[in-house]
Amino acid sequence: MAPTNEFSGLVNVRQQLSNKTELLNEASRKRLWSENDAGVRLLNPHIQDMDQDVLYHLNLGTGTHDLQQMFGDVKFVAMGGTPQRMHSFAEFMIREMGHQLPTGTCLQDISAKSYRYAMYKVGPVLSISHGMGIPSASILLHEIIKLLYHAKVKDPIIFRIGTCGGIGLPPGTVVVTEEALDGLCRPVLDTAILGRVVSRPAILDKALAQSVADCSDPEDNYKTVLGKTISTDDFYEGQGRLDGAICEYTEEDKMNFLRQVTEKGVVNMEMEASVFAALTHLAGIKSAVVCVTLLDRLNGDQISTPKSELTAWQERPQQIVSRYILRHLSLAERQGPTMGRMVRTNSALFQGSQSTFEDTIEEH
Amino acid sequence: MAPTNEFSGLVNVRQQLSNKTELLNEASRKRLWSENDAGVRLLNPHIQDMDQDVLYHLNLGTGTHDLQQMFGDVKFVAMGGTPQRMHSFAEFMIREMGHQLPTGTCLQDISAKSYRYAMYKVGPVLSISHGMGIPSASILLHEIIKLLYHAKVKDPIIFRIGTCGGIGLPPGTVVVTEEALDGLCRPVLDTAILGRVVSRPAILDKALAQSVADCSDPEDNYKTVLGKTISTDDFYEGQGRLDGAICEYTEEDKMNFLRQVTEKGVVNMEMEASVFAALTHLAGIKSAVVCVTLLDRLNGDQISTPKSELTAWQERPQQIVSRYILRHLSLAERQGPTMGRMVRTNSALFQGSQSTFEDTIEEH
Repeated sequence: MAPTNEFSGLVNVRQQLSNKTELLNEASRKRLWSENDAGVRLLNPHIQDMDQDVLYHLNLGTGTHDLQQMFGDVKFVAMGGTPQRMHSFAEFMIREMGHQLPTGTCLQDISAKSYRYAMYKVGPVLSISHGMGIPSASILLHEIIKLLYHAKVKDPIIFRIGTCGGIGLPPGTVVVTEEALDGLCRPVLDTAILGRVVSRPAILDKALAQSVADCSDPEDNYKTVLGKTISTDDFYEGQGRLDGAICEYTEEDKMNFLRQVTEKGVVNMEMEASVFAALTHLAGIKSAVVCVTLLDRLNGDQISTPKSELTAWQERPQQIVSRYILRHLSLAERQGPTMGRMVRTNSALFQGSQSTFEDTIEEH
Repeated sequence: MAPTNEFSGLVNVRQQLSNKTELLNEASRKRLWSENDAGVRLLNPHIQDMDQDVLYHLNLGTGTHDLQQMFGDVKFVAMGGTPQRMHSFAEFMIREMGHQLPTGTCLQDISAKSYRYAMYKVGPVLSISHGMGIPSASILLHEIIKLLYHAKVKDPIIFRIGTCGGIGLPPGTVVVTEEALDGLCRPVLDTAILGRVVSRPAILDKALAQSVADCSDPEDNYKTVLGKTISTDDFYEGQGRLDGAICEYTEEDKMNFLRQVTEKGVVNMEMEASVFAALTHLAGIKSAVVCVTLLDRLNGDQISTPKSELTAWQERPQQIVSRYILRHLSLAERQGPTMGRMVRTNSALFQGSQSTFEDTIEEH
């Protein structure tokens, strides 16, 4: 075919693309990604063309916030089920990093007004609640991956620090997921998209999982193990419990199922690992799933351990992940930006003098 | 076969069932339900045999709480996504029912210590947050259905009052779901149970849906309509949005999908209706799903309406459901138990006198 024909063919095509939608669609077909000059690439060509991006469930947006200024220094994102646990992880990281907040400031829930998730930031660490189940975690992952893109963050790592049911492990054991499986024991995440089921590989970074597991300490009073994790869409029937409002199988059926999955290398069940694996893999972001077992499912279904003990156990994934983070941050990164350090120094001096002053008053 | 042979056969069977598990399994095979002397039946034979039932995500249990005393008077359960919305519905019901709290009391989040859901009780009405997505709502439904069983509640009705994306409706329209569909437009809820997919019909009570829709008022500044609802497992790709972190289809693909579902009678998309329909249907409990549309998906994907307007719209499903509840409660039921009425009367008198007293002070 001669070049002139090819050119006139192109002109014809352009004439047919008479409205904006069709032009956009053509652009989308050519480009698979949204890219800015640095950081995370998005497997979505449309974001790059949007006037603004409202991250609705985070109560943030590119039109209302300078996301690069606010989040450009983020290196690690930790996610977990409850707002309370993620507030406690943020406070834990403040202590572990020696990261003192400027005088007169306290941790603020950045997404409080969304009423959906709670988000805290401690220097290079974001700590965010994801609720329960794949759909809730999926909304957060979409919006956090876009946040990292808009903030031009390079090579972030995302952790899930959660709770789970163990299979054949002493309660209180920490499991680092080496492979995430769905309820049918397949290493995929199925999503119904435009009326069809799309199966995506649920792949976690094995080297990262090993490095995280290596953060266990011989002096820990618990074991940290690597193993396969089943992510279910239901806590009761989905995990073979006998104590839901509905149960149409016997204890024998349940035990057979638990034995079968154990033979495949499954050591725990929870409700989010597969979506972490699938979405971060597609976004080219490394992620790890670190959960503490609250019970051994071979011995029962109900979580009846006292609340105080459960709370203590929930700190274990936080300890493991904080060790990994500390090993991968420079001293300067731990302590925060120069401005922060200056304020902190002043604040420390001021605290000392004020304390002396109060003592003096009391002595009189 | 002679009766003696049959009897000795039974004896042999009993001898074979040498341990407790097998005996329990045999009992389970014979009995499909747990039943007490009144109220909700559970499609689970095991609950009846349990020493105690810990409703872990509600921070309640039969061993620690007198659930019948606490919840025996419940007639309606309202569920919605956020703790804040369900607190506001509880306060709304206090006003609408004329249900004054005893002096010196305020609404308490009954499940605060679970850090999972927020639960408020106003006389015969429970108001509870369910988080986002089918798995999160499923955990709550299992535990609430068991709560209603333990509390011996008769004929409760469960409502979801939520938000959604509308298709071809002005934003702010209220949709009462007449049929709940999954992401593949099938009226079922698929759950992976013991390694197999179990498809259950997602059936809502059509007469209830009609009665709820009939609670709209000609003077409302919004329309209330009946229609089919798609429940998805994802907010972005699952609902055909172009603005997620991942999007592998074009705007044309999206619009074709929205047109196809519209032709099937679908008027809105959200993330929980199908699990409400399926689990309440199996439990023999009537339920209705009432959502306000925050945008028209035919015109876009992003929710960019001002927060104040969105908040006002979120009250609309509350208004419709509260009208239904008020029509189905006697005056005595609205006002609460006798003790409550007495305290309220005293409290009202006291408030009057105190108010006068304060005015007097100010006047001097």
